[in-house]
Amino acid sequence: MTLHTGRHFLQIPGPTNVPDRILRAIDRPTIDHRGPEFQELGASVLAGIRRIFQTESPVIIYPASGTGAWEAALVNCLSSGDRVLMAETGHFASLWHKMAQRLGLKVEFIPGDWRRGVDPAAVAERLAKDKAHTIKAVCCVHNETSTGVTSRIAEVRKAMDAERHPALLMVDTISSLGSIEYRHDAWGVDVTVGGSQKGLMLPPGLSFNAISKKALAAAEKGGMARSFWDWSDMLGPNEKGFFPYTPATNLLYGLQEAIAMLEEEGLENVFARHARHGEATRQAVQSWGLEVLCQDEREYSDALTAVVLPDGHDADAFRAAVLEAFDMSLGSGLGKLQGRVFRIGHLGSFNDLMLMGTLAGVEMGLSLAGVPHQRGGAQRAMDYLASTSGNSAAEPKLRVKA
Amino acid sequence: MTLHTGRHFLQIPGPTNVPDRILRAIDRPTIDHRGPEFQELGASVLAGIRRIFQTESPVIIYPASGTGAWEAALVNCLSSGDRVLMAETGHFASLWHKMAQRLGLKVEFIPGDWRRGVDPAAVAERLAKDKAHTIKAVCCVHNETSTGVTSRIAEVRKAMDAERHPALLMVDTISSLGSIEYRHDAWGVDVTVGGSQKGLMLPPGLSFNAISKKALAAAEKGGMARSFWDWSDMLGPNEKGFFPYTPATNLLYGLQEAIAMLEEEGLENVFARHARHGEATRQAVQSWGLEVLCQDEREYSDALTAVVLPDGHDADAFRAAVLEAFDMSLGSGLGKLQGRVFRIGHLGSFNDLMLMGTLAGVEMGLSLAGVPHQRGGAQRAMDYLASTSGNSAAEPKLRVKA
Amino acid sequence: MTLHTGRHFLQIPGPTNVPDRILRAIDRPTIDHRGPEFQELGASVLAGIRRIFQTESPVIIYPASGTGAWEAALVNCLSSGDRVLMAETGHFASLWHKMAQRLGLKVEFIPGDWRRGVDPAAVAERLAKDKAHTIKAVCCVHNETSTGVTSRIAEVRKAMDAERHPALLMVDTISSLGSIEYRHDAWGVDVTVGGSQKGLMLPPGLSFNAISKKALAAAEKGGMARSFWDWSDMLGPNEKGFFPYTPATNLLYGLQEAIAMLEEEGLENVFARHARHGEATRQAVQSWGLEVLCQDEREYSDALTAVVLPDGHDADAFRAAVLEAFDMSLGSGLGKLQGRVFRIGHLGSFNDLMLMGTLAGVEMGLSLAGVPHQRGGAQRAMDYLASTSGNSAAEPKLRVKA
Amino acid sequence: MTLHTGRHFLQIPGPTNVPDRILRAIDRPTIDHRGPEFQELGASVLAGIRRIFQTESPVIIYPASGTGAWEAALVNCLSSGDRVLMAETGHFASLWHKMAQRLGLKVEFIPGDWRRGVDPAAVAERLAKDKAHTIKAVCCVHNETSTGVTSRIAEVRKAMDAERHPALLMVDTISSLGSIEYRHDAWGVDVTVGGSQKGLMLPPGLSFNAISKKALAAAEKGGMARSFWDWSDMLGPNEKGFFPYTPATNLLYGLQEAIAMLEEEGLENVFARHARHGEATRQAVQSWGLEVLCQDEREYSDALTAVVLPDGHDADAFRAAVLEAFDMSLGSGLGKLQGRVFRIGHLGSFNDLMLMGTLAGVEMGLSLAGVPHQRGGAQRAMDYLASTSGNSAAEPKLRVKA
Repeated sequence: MTLHTGRHFLQIPGPTNVPDRILRAIDRPTIDHRGPEFQELGASVLAGIRRIFQTESPVIIYPASGTGAWEAALVNCLSSGDRVLMAETGHFASLWHKMAQRLGLKVEFIPGDWRRGVDPAAVAERLAKDKAHTIKAVCCVHNETSTGVTSRIAEVRKAMDAERHPALLMVDTISSLGSIEYRHDAWGVDVTVGGSQKGLMLPPGLSFNAISKKALAAAEKGGMARSFWDWSDMLGPNEKGFFPYTPATNLLYGLQEAIAMLEEEGLENVFARHARHGEATRQAVQSWGLEVLCQDEREYSDALTAVVLPDGHDADAFRAAVLEAFDMSLGSGLGKLQGRVFRIGHLGSFNDLMLMGTLAGVEMGLSLAGVPHQRGGAQRAMDYLASTSGNSAAEPKLRVKA
Repeated sequence: MTLHTGRHFLQIPGPTNVPDRILRAIDRPTIDHRGPEFQELGASVLAGIRRIFQTESPVIIYPASGTGAWEAALVNCLSSGDRVLMAETGHFASLWHKMAQRLGLKVEFIPGDWRRGVDPAAVAERLAKDKAHTIKAVCCVHNETSTGVTSRIAEVRKAMDAERHPALLMVDTISSLGSIEYRHDAWGVDVTVGGSQKGLMLPPGLSFNAISKKALAAAEKGGMARSFWDWSDMLGPNEKGFFPYTPATNLLYGLQEAIAMLEEEGLENVFARHARHGEATRQAVQSWGLEVLCQDEREYSDALTAVVLPDGHDADAFRAAVLEAFDMSLGSGLGKLQGRVFRIGHLGSFNDLMLMGTLAGVEMGLSLAGVPHQRGGAQRAMDYLASTSGNSAAEPKLRVKA
Repeated sequence: MTLHTGRHFLQIPGPTNVPDRILRAIDRPTIDHRGPEFQELGASVLAGIRRIFQTESPVIIYPASGTGAWEAALVNCLSSGDRVLMAETGHFASLWHKMAQRLGLKVEFIPGDWRRGVDPAAVAERLAKDKAHTIKAVCCVHNETSTGVTSRIAEVRKAMDAERHPALLMVDTISSLGSIEYRHDAWGVDVTVGGSQKGLMLPPGLSFNAISKKALAAAEKGGMARSFWDWSDMLGPNEKGFFPYTPATNLLYGLQEAIAMLEEEGLENVFARHARHGEATRQAVQSWGLEVLCQDEREYSDALTAVVLPDGHDADAFRAAVLEAFDMSLGSGLGKLQGRVFRIGHLGSFNDLMLMGTLAGVEMGLSLAGVPHQRGGAQRAMDYLASTSGNSAAEPKLRVKA
Repeated sequence: MTLHTGRHFLQIPGPTNVPDRILRAIDRPTIDHRGPEFQELGASVLAGIRRIFQTESPVIIYPASGTGAWEAALVNCLSSGDRVLMAETGHFASLWHKMAQRLGLKVEFIPGDWRRGVDPAAVAERLAKDKAHTIKAVCCVHNETSTGVTSRIAEVRKAMDAERHPALLMVDTISSLGSIEYRHDAWGVDVTVGGSQKGLMLPPGLSFNAISKKALAAAEKGGMARSFWDWSDMLGPNEKGFFPYTPATNLLYGLQEAIAMLEEEGLENVFARHARHGEATRQAVQSWGLEVLCQDEREYSDALTAVVLPDGHDADAFRAAVLEAFDMSLGSGLGKLQGRVFRIGHLGSFNDLMLMGTLAGVEMGLSLAGVPHQRGGAQRAMDYLASTSGNSAAEPKLRVKA
């Protein structure tokens, strides 16, 4: 067994540090998933999770991890051979693309350099050409966990609306839900995909589909052959707080606690907290003289920051040094970014001092691993945090320039 | 919140009573699923779960509940339009049938009265007619959770072999794995489906596919469009203890503990314990003058017992009375058995005194609910348990006749 | 490590089965015992524990186990050489006697046969002779954990009042508090001693002194040299929710939950539940043809039952057989009762089915150990429980005769 | 309930951050303290705790918090009217002094300025004058939790030996045991007092007396009237792993885990880790231009650092600001230091990044509270930690000068 003296710093961009309140909630005896005590639990989480997605529509809760909820979004609404439009924002967008292809969809993939979000203009441009409305869905990753870039979903919606295109809008919020502002209804999203192990502060094992009326109608008429992921099987029992097959009861205990915690803090405050920590992190990176991967300051992610290492320096060697010396896990570069970037998760159950421990660990690790940098990034973050303390709900005043 | 004075008796046939050791194991901080500490965990559970399935072949661990693993078995090996042979042993066999149909398979369903297991002779007879080998798979439920009937899988295998039929043999062991003897390799099964929340004593949220070389070959050449459930994506990372997408880390902690507990007791002793408790339960039922649903004593389930109520008595009213008066959850009649039977789960983390509390609760409940019966069932079980105590690994000497 | 398949039955008369809610409450991070979060906790438990003792007076909470709270009662109010009156009701009364002697008190010990409680008439008789009021305290054990006899404290108080004797009345409720009706104020008790590990359902490690104004006045003027146990050091900080030295914070989390659970059920219902379980147990013992140690039916303990084994049979051998065969811990005979009686704890977090498991374990154990008895005790308890079910708050209608 | 986003930083010098492994160990069902499973536990912790005290002699484990173990040391060995020599090293030495007086001892208190440890020369000088050997014990606090000063116990012993004085040497290690090197046998200590909630990383509720043969002999012949604290009652049952009255079972589970964790890391490594963190903290304080309370660099505490605020600045206001803004608890100035110093705990379950979070919180707090200081303390600690990383077992090379 690995020896930890003190707490491990789990600063990958998810799974995130699960707070004790949630772990303790999960650590309760499993109950009959067909009994009245469960029914109360089921009704509570099914109602609560809608508030987190900011929707009046149903949210499906799967006893499965996030990748499954991607698949669910696709197989409920789309048929083999359907055309979908995706944008290459990073590794997870690419994986979703690959999944869509494997499920028999025809994917158009708007190319990208993994340093920017979905370009609403490019979406508009492509849809404008699709006079026959052969494109059935536009699929975007809200927060690209591999790059630390947050796409502007509301603007994508506007672009679609401007073209009066009937395609469904599907959005992956696995690493933004409960961390970065997201509004399923207000932004007109048809299917939002979420997961438990990031902003919701739960262990992995639950995932979500928030669905609009339009998506539901599409599912009723079409979709692929499906069973486990089928929405309609879920919706009936869900009305009474039940599920059609065995739910992941203990994770639902945790979900109930997570919803309570987010609402005790207030969603707006949760978002502001993440924004402040994102900004502090970026200022540290800038002070070190390193590059934030994200190129557009409108798209900085407040959930994680991907940092580019200078040429000739291996990000994985750096990460291994940090793990060895300081018992902190940082996120690796994924796909084509492997070895070139590392990622700092600053989302979920988190606060100023955990962030300072994290940034200190990065700065010390840069020294240990011999990565050229300037001292003082942690100091600068500290200055920023001190200057904005007690003001966490306010818009940060200082924003580092891209 | 429901008030419990003392412990709830969760005597449905799963989810079962999760022991404290496992709950505490789960209640540990989530770790980086791409780091070295996880790798040790992953390698440990991937090796250990094979021993539980009694196989040298790979076992896939899904971060999803058991219904998903059914789907995985079908979509990896079979193609839309393929013919499969199933047997109507009860509600879960019927649900699996329904799932297969929804996935586009052509299902032949050997009819049954829900009181017997799969008839090996009927399988042989059907396969004998299938000279063209259009039947691609025979799918059986090992232990029908809805009826308390355990099919004789080894005999089904023999019947298939006798016909030299190349169909794959797929078996659902969701409610038998870790409770009733099951041998994936020795019995020549191609895909075994399992779940976490029964004999493995875990909360729901993990499920399994144990796969033979033949099944793997079938999957490599064919199967349906799939992504989340795809075996080949799993097998590569699994070799090093990793998973292709985020695993349900905390449930894997629990799985590691569950495997340790089963092996500390010894699988043979686990099976003998369940056999003894099954027998004690059936003797109690017989003493009450009630009918065990299972009609063939070779097929009695040692994991649960379904009990038929006399005509004119509602099993659900009886169950509600037991829950109200004694804080015990019993299993309901499912599908066409609703209201006619109740089910006593006696599997998982269980012992003689928990069984006696359970049977006393049933006997008292029969009185409270006005169900005609003879007193003395609990007494008879007690006599049986006392007479066989200290001898739990031995074959029970007395067996009630069907 | 000991292997448990299923739950251990901890049926000693304390420590009792700690419910999950309380274990989980304890399993929270320790906090600063001088900070505002602690202050809320401290204020909450200091107020709540008074309600459990049914007093308006202060209750001292010691970070120490129950034996310490005995000592605290004595050293705060009495001086070396003071005379106290005690009654030999069993092993714990004898231990308290021994402690008093070691602390330099002169103890008069009203003899007893360990089968009856404190005789109010004997107390009255002795006090009547004490014209000079040299007796400074009367010390009684409310519920003798070694014998299963509950003394009639209100009658002792009346006897003292009738004699107009100014001695303090000190009562040990370690194994009755939260299980058997007890009223510190209404019964005019001066110091009540309590502990955490019985009716309060907590692990051992906390103990209590509920103190009357008269006791407080005595302590202010006198008492022995003391520091750790000193009441006055406690009372000041307690007013604000704090403690003069480091409190057992995590057990206080548990205490807060325990108070909540007792009040959710309602203290009257808690007492009625214990009364019903005590009666069921005694009926079982009578059916077995064994003897309840307690000789006076007015003094039957509803928290535990001590059972006399026939001559020539060793109660410890019986207990060892039960532990080995059924994983149940029963209480041993203590002091001069060693080997002659065993004790069944039926207090704390408990319910009908746990009781039936317990009684079945005893009955089966009697068989295994070859102790002569009649079958049917568990059956009789079951009949009694069924006939009184749903009526737990009512006075049990049937009471076995002594 | 207080809302925490992320983990609270509990940086008082005890209770310390309880690691999850220990909390989970405590969160297990309580067992029969007279049964065989307990016996294994008892034997294990009684043997293990000796290794932590570095003694071959018995160690008494009390189910009571640390203040009680002080009292136990005094009442077992000393009689009312005995003379003891103590040294005024700070608040806890003063409290122990007060306790001794209340117990009827005559205390000579070598005066001190609360910025230095026990002066071995002063002890020698006083003992030299005590030709009649009226001084029965010399009582020292090893690590003064109120000041961050570690007395040189081995030198005190040498001073006593040089005078050939037979007084017992009693040492309080409540805040040093398991953090700062301490050798009960090698240093010739007669009674060592310890507690659970500091270096042992447990919640409060256990305390210890490690006793030499000489102390045991003194206790057998003398001591005060006592019962709960009596050593001889403990030693008999302890030989078999049992206790004379109900032990704090669940905290013993935690103790077993704590001993395992300390031994997995290695006591020498534990001490080196604390030394490195102590040094880093002092360098930070020096960089801020603030004063470490401890005046003698030989006596710097590696468990905590007390920091003097400039005149006119209230340490409690500073602490409140830190708690409010950063959810970190720092230790207050105690007794005459109230408002003048704050204390940083850097002991127990701790690591580099937790320390950096802590020091960042202090530095930001100094800004928020308007305490004059120079920026850069956290930066300097970070530089020190980076330069000594991977070398935690080595003697720190740089030590700040007093």
